Amino acid sequence: MRLDQLGEWELIDRLSAYAPPGQLADDAAILPGAVVVNTDVLVDTVHFSDATMSAQDLGWRAAAANLSDLAAMGCSDVIGLTVGLVAPGATPWSWVDGVYQGLSEALARFGGTLLGGDCSSGSQRLLAITALGQLGPGAIRRGDGQPGDWLVSTGPHGLSRLGLALLQGQPSAAIPETLRERAIRAHQRPLPRLDAIPALEASQPQGSPWRVAGTDSSDGLQRALLNLAKASGCGAQLRHTGLPLDPAMAPLADAERWCLNGGEDFELVLALEPTWAERLCAALPGCQVIGELVEHSSPTLTWSETGLPLQESDPGYRHFS
Amino acid sequence: MRLDQLGEWELIDRLSAYAPPGQLADDAAILPGAVVVNTDVLVDTVHFSDATMSAQDLGWRAAAANLSDLAAMGCSDVIGLTVGLVAPGATPWSWVDGVYQGLSEALARFGGTLLGGDCSSGSQRLLAITALGQLGPGAIRRGDGQPGDWLVSTGPHGLSRLGLALLQGQPSAAIPETLRERAIRAHQRPLPRLDAIPALEASQPQGSPWRVAGTDSSDGLQRALLNLAKASGCGAQLRHTGLPLDPAMAPLADAERWCLNGGEDFELVLALEPTWAERLCAALPGCQVIGELVEHSSPTLTWSETGLPLQESDPGYRHFS
Repeated sequence: MRLDQLGEWELIDRLSAYAPPGQLADDAAILPGAVVVNTDVLVDTVHFSDATMSAQDLGWRAAAANLSDLAAMGCSDVIGLTVGLVAPGATPWSWVDGVYQGLSEALARFGGTLLGGDCSSGSQRLLAITALGQLGPGAIRRGDGQPGDWLVSTGPHGLSRLGLALLQGQPSAAIPETLRERAIRAHQRPLPRLDAIPALEASQPQGSPWRVAGTDSSDGLQRALLNLAKASGCGAQLRHTGLPLDPAMAPLADAERWCLNGGEDFELVLALEPTWAERLCAALPGCQVIGELVEHSSPTLTWSETGLPLQESDPGYRHFS
Repeated sequence: MRLDQLGEWELIDRLSAYAPPGQLADDAAILPGAVVVNTDVLVDTVHFSDATMSAQDLGWRAAAANLSDLAAMGCSDVIGLTVGLVAPGATPWSWVDGVYQGLSEALARFGGTLLGGDCSSGSQRLLAITALGQLGPGAIRRGDGQPGDWLVSTGPHGLSRLGLALLQGQPSAAIPETLRERAIRAHQRPLPRLDAIPALEASQPQGSPWRVAGTDSSDGLQRALLNLAKASGCGAQLRHTGLPLDPAMAPLADAERWCLNGGEDFELVLALEPTWAERLCAALPGCQVIGELVEHSSPTLTWSETGLPLQESDPGYRHFS
């Protein structure tokens, strides 16, 4: 069996056998001392391209993607990053310099320092980043959701995918300049939602224990909901009227598809008891209720209004296919 | 300027500007809670080859190389590893399975668990491993050496390089079968010297403060001595009669060269005050005094007996050249 026949999710399932039970089920791992660690790999032509991203943007994006996983685990404080850099010997120093500038800009914005790393020649440019953070008031786990929890998105989805389409030269006559700029920025300079953790803590209802289920939406909103519901042993109902669309994007033909499966928005998708969900949405601008967890159902994801299943998501993030 | 014109050491120097001063000067970084973190990248055809290493051996070696950096920082307890895996889609699952078996065998032997990771397709097989450990009785830093310290090696050097030569099919008629087997094993299944940390603690003279300078010899004994001496602002004198050669290797023509610059022996090279050095060598089998730190000198590395400089080391580990 070849890796491209297995696909990424099956591969991760098989590799889980080498870790303690449940260890690979979350966005990151919690170590002694409440240190949280996460590793992401970004490969040229698979995850990035000179055509759509400068070296600085790549560095920022690489840091942001990792910090998003820390936020998804419940971190608000970043300790720092280690960076494994691989590039052909003919790569200009200016490109590496740009990547580290972008990484440093992200660390200056979100906290933490460059902790270490390694570099090597190789046939393809590649970054392997490990992010380390300090857990905040409590852990966020994918499997901690319960039927009756409300599903919350910390922000709109689809903007990054629109930005990618624009950068790839797709027609954009109908797209207002301000939306165009915002979409490209969302793709090149995504913002990990570390700020959601203090907001979660501040909005926790008195007397409620800390129980927050969640993940980030790096692989798309639909995939995030599926992972969350499955890990919690629940079904998830998504409100069509509650889709977290940027209002300016709503008129676009691809808006709903990109909202669900565009990927790389790096928002948090959380399951909370309803009072907490309401309070969080009141406290965090852009945050909205998008549905709820229900008793285990098949299919796992359905529309609240019709009970119909969501279409299978794009296979876009199956990186071995 | 291209990376292959810079070389690895100059590249690391330049990247240091993006980290806090001194942050990249050691084998690993120390985080809050005395957690130690290190990242290493292993690239197909640069660091490993199917011709000389099975998938299981590669997994073991990758873990061992990282754990050696933890030991070099003063860790005796391993928390675990994260693994970034990149491979072409046509790679068989059995290869990945083998790598993870080897990683798991190393963790079973030295402690710690698989904590997480990421995987992606890419043009070249590659492992980016981050190891996490808990600091022991004190940190070991490259820059903590002082003139008068004795230089100690925790074990012999050159065996791994002999193993590589044998695996690459170099003539071995003159090499006894037991040495042959030991050399190949040293190359394929190196042992990180986490066991040296409790021995260091046990041999610390009463009343002496914790001051241990050191690094591991992954890039060769001579490079380790150079890094240690330079970081400590000292010169280093190496005893020709004290070369840490495996006795069975001594008759070989390449023995001295491989001892100094073979690389990948993953021993610790330490600078300690003489009493502590003597006590450590008495407590840890295979450990021996190999020289001493002296006042800053140019060249940095000289032979104790003659005062002559050591020859420039092989450029073998300049991975961008």
